[in-house]
Amino acid sequence: MDPRTGMPRVGMVGGGQLARMTHQAAVPLGQTLRVLAESPDDSAALVTPEVEIGTHTDLEALTRFAQGCDVVTFDHEHVPGEHIRALVAAGHLVYPGADALQFAQDKALMRERLAALGAPVPRYAVLPGAADRDPAATLAAVVDFAAPGWPVVLKTARGGYDGRGVWVLQDEPAAAALLAELGPGTDLVLEELVPLERELAAVVARSPFGQAAAWPIVETVQENGICVEVIAPAPDLDGRVAAAASRLALRIAGELGVVGVLAVELFQVPVSDTAPDGILVNELAMRPHNSGHWSMDGAVTGQFEQHLRAVLDYPLGRTDALAPWTVMGNVLGGPADGAGAGIGMDERVHHLSARFPEVKVHLYGKAFRPGRKLGHVNVLGSDLARLRRTARLAADWLSTGEWTDGWDPHTAATTAAVPFIERTGR
Amino acid sequence: MDPRTGMPRVGMVGGGQLARMTHQAAVPLGQTLRVLAESPDDSAALVTPEVEIGTHTDLEALTRFAQGCDVVTFDHEHVPGEHIRALVAAGHLVYPGADALQFAQDKALMRERLAALGAPVPRYAVLPGAADRDPAATLAAVVDFAAPGWPVVLKTARGGYDGRGVWVLQDEPAAAALLAELGPGTDLVLEELVPLERELAAVVARSPFGQAAAWPIVETVQENGICVEVIAPAPDLDGRVAAAASRLALRIAGELGVVGVLAVELFQVPVSDTAPDGILVNELAMRPHNSGHWSMDGAVTGQFEQHLRAVLDYPLGRTDALAPWTVMGNVLGGPADGAGAGIGMDERVHHLSARFPEVKVHLYGKAFRPGRKLGHVNVLGSDLARLRRTARLAADWLSTGEWTDGWDPHTAATTAAVPFIERTGR
Ligand SMILES: Nc1ncnc2c1ncn2[C@@H]1O[C@H](COP(=O)(O)OP(=O)(O)OP(=O)(O)O)[C@@H](O)[C@H]1O
Ligand SMILES: Nc1ncnc2c1ncn2[C@@H]1O[C@H](COP(=O)(O)OP(=O)(O)OP(=O)(O)O)[C@@H](O)[C@H]1O
Ligand SMILES: [Mg+2]
Ligand SMILES: [Mg+2]
Repeated sequence: MDPRTGMPRVGMVGGGQLARMTHQAAVPLGQTLRVLAESPDDSAALVTPEVEIGTHTDLEALTRFAQGCDVVTFDHEHVPGEHIRALVAAGHLVYPGADALQFAQDKALMRERLAALGAPVPRYAVLPGAADRDPAATLAAVVDFAAPGWPVVLKTARGGYDGRGVWVLQDEPAAAALLAELGPGTDLVLEELVPLERELAAVVARSPFGQAAAWPIVETVQENGICVEVIAPAPDLDGRVAAAASRLALRIAGELGVVGVLAVELFQVPVSDTAPDGILVNELAMRPHNSGHWSMDGAVTGQFEQHLRAVLDYPLGRTDALAPWTVMGNVLGGPADGAGAGIGMDERVHHLSARFPEVKVHLYGKAFRPGRKLGHVNVLGSDLARLRRTARLAADWLSTGEWTDGWDPHTAATTAAVPFIERTGR
Repeated sequence: MDPRTGMPRVGMVGGGQLARMTHQAAVPLGQTLRVLAESPDDSAALVTPEVEIGTHTDLEALTRFAQGCDVVTFDHEHVPGEHIRALVAAGHLVYPGADALQFAQDKALMRERLAALGAPVPRYAVLPGAADRDPAATLAAVVDFAAPGWPVVLKTARGGYDGRGVWVLQDEPAAAALLAELGPGTDLVLEELVPLERELAAVVARSPFGQAAAWPIVETVQENGICVEVIAPAPDLDGRVAAAASRLALRIAGELGVVGVLAVELFQVPVSDTAPDGILVNELAMRPHNSGHWSMDGAVTGQFEQHLRAVLDYPLGRTDALAPWTVMGNVLGGPADGAGAGIGMDERVHHLSARFPEVKVHLYGKAFRPGRKLGHVNVLGSDLARLRRTARLAADWLSTGEWTDGWDPHTAATTAAVPFIERTGR
């Protein structure tokens, strides 16, 4: 308890944008998020006063941090399981627990566990243990796995993100070259290249009490392995498939004992024996997830508030959508930061508001870096094609300082004439 | 500019709940609100890292604070106009400016100015200057004003809030007693006791550029001079009256040169020569206002974000409502804090979520005190009667730890069976 307010102190390990947005959600709940950040300039450390500096691999730092918290949770999946177990052994509440989190940390473990549960997964194989890997035997295993046909997908079991650690292998020489490059020491998973129609995500939250809530199934659009757009709900998704996807995610949350937000990344595929509902599980994230950012503006309860409720064992909030459609666009650092054009982020927000006063901006306070997630935008309404166009233009504008449709504020008509906005003055 | 983010630094004088909620709105805009708070335990100081301790009557503290800000704005109306002028003379941007703010600081000035603008106001009289007030002449002026009939309303021109500084005088002896009690030294305004049907508020925002945006007109429900409930939009309000009220507020914002949020408190009255649209202006607030709290969850752009946009001269955001109705209920400290029942605020939030998972909670992190604004709740939907009942029950529960309808979680059916919330687990 925070003695000043009588409200619980939630601590989040990691000071990225997820912690930043969790603090934003903590404020209306009467709380102050505590953050274990690597640097005082971390995204979350800029906005909450309760910051400790330390790294998630340092058990001492974790222990000191946990002592000031009623419950500890995570901004990312990188805290070693043995550290989580040590914190729990010392009497701290930590959610999600190590037993659950391992399946979000290790794609090999995740595939095995989901297969054991009978969840629909792509055909896969876990490659012989990293330490004693024999290069020839490993390559033979890949070739064997690819017998039905190349290409196949190779993934590092741990540490991948935003498509880093995922390779599509076209043939045996490509496999040999990559394996030589990776060397031993990395656990690997092989997967069929799924003939995916599109990607979906089922985001749910679950409390220690066992209550669980699902948001509508969303479509996630990837470019170069990075999520660029999310559409809620997934357009034209058969109601039975949507229900099956939600049930699957709720079942996974329950079976693995997840506490907090769980995002289940899905591939939509043609119905088959291995995919009777036309969905396969790609991977799991046990924290607020990019595919749930739309809920901040588009649902009664956003995923960051829900994550707090869940780890505090509060009853969960309603997850209904507030509009027929919400579209989220990621603001990714472009190849250059556009500062050449002399238009900084402040000015970009200014121009964006002039053109699209309906767009909700979420900026993470992060320095520019190509490909880095700098923020996102949400926009709600009933005309999906228009919302998608708006979200894309807005996100690209914030990323690059350029309107990809060539829009020019000096020649364009100004803000659409809406009755409640007018010029006033003497 | 904040060199870490390239984003502007807005500073708010005062560390109350309005500053707290403004910080919450600053986070998605990529910003960190700077706050000049009286104490490190102030509502806003608990949630933003950028806190300076100091008081709003201390020009040195204000100046030091302003030096770290790109623009300075206010959580309350109590900063002396001469201090604001001194800051501006020293080159700081301060919004709203002293010329505008005086009309929110002084009800006598406000009445005179609005009357001069031709805005509809109650019949009023400003009592002879405080310093040289002659008790007999003052009483005579009151009696004279009451000639058409008692009762009349007497208000202190400055410093009143939540109905403090407002008295209904039933007759001459009551007037004499109150004037004797008040003594000289307080500027006073006399007003007719308006035969009000209900109270409304027109909340708008205006930028230095002169762009202005209005939210829908709301109904505000007062009990004992304190706002307890706000309904957006005001039920059964004639469209022409609503439009007239919005036009009036936008005109006042423009004529007075307001920058930021302006709340115009209105009385709805029968149409007459002095109230041709059936509305009279009660008073003005030049900051986010209780009557706009519904917009945090119920409108595309909430009033705290809009206030930031306005003082930064960003184009304003859309003000459309997200649902047919939003009801706000104030959480006011009850006569006792209910801790006798052993149910602290944390547990109250827990129980509230179990009963009403659709309610949005906003807590200010403030210690209990009878009558103190501790938080508010918002709830959106289409069944107004039900929303009002929910908001009232929820706010009263958080205030007192008692369900005023006698609800008992142990006998009541648990959370309404909603398809997306279920019990999961092994
Ligand atoms: N077996 C597969 N078949 C087809 N495409 C795949 C397969 N596995 C991954 N992909 C593609 O690569 C993307 C990234 O894969 P994955 O989610 O496993 O990696 P990641 O680096 O953990 O991603 P992130 O952290 O961004 O979710 C997927 O979203 C999908 O577009
Ligand atoms: N002339 C009047 N006739 C009838 N009722 C009045 C009049 N003036 C004030 N009231 C009632 O008293 C309430 C408080 O008045 P007023 O807004 O002037 O005071 P305040 O202390 O500044 O309030 P707050 O700060 O809560 O807005 C009003 O909302 C209204 O209910
Ligand atoms: Mg993925
Ligand atoms: Mg008032």
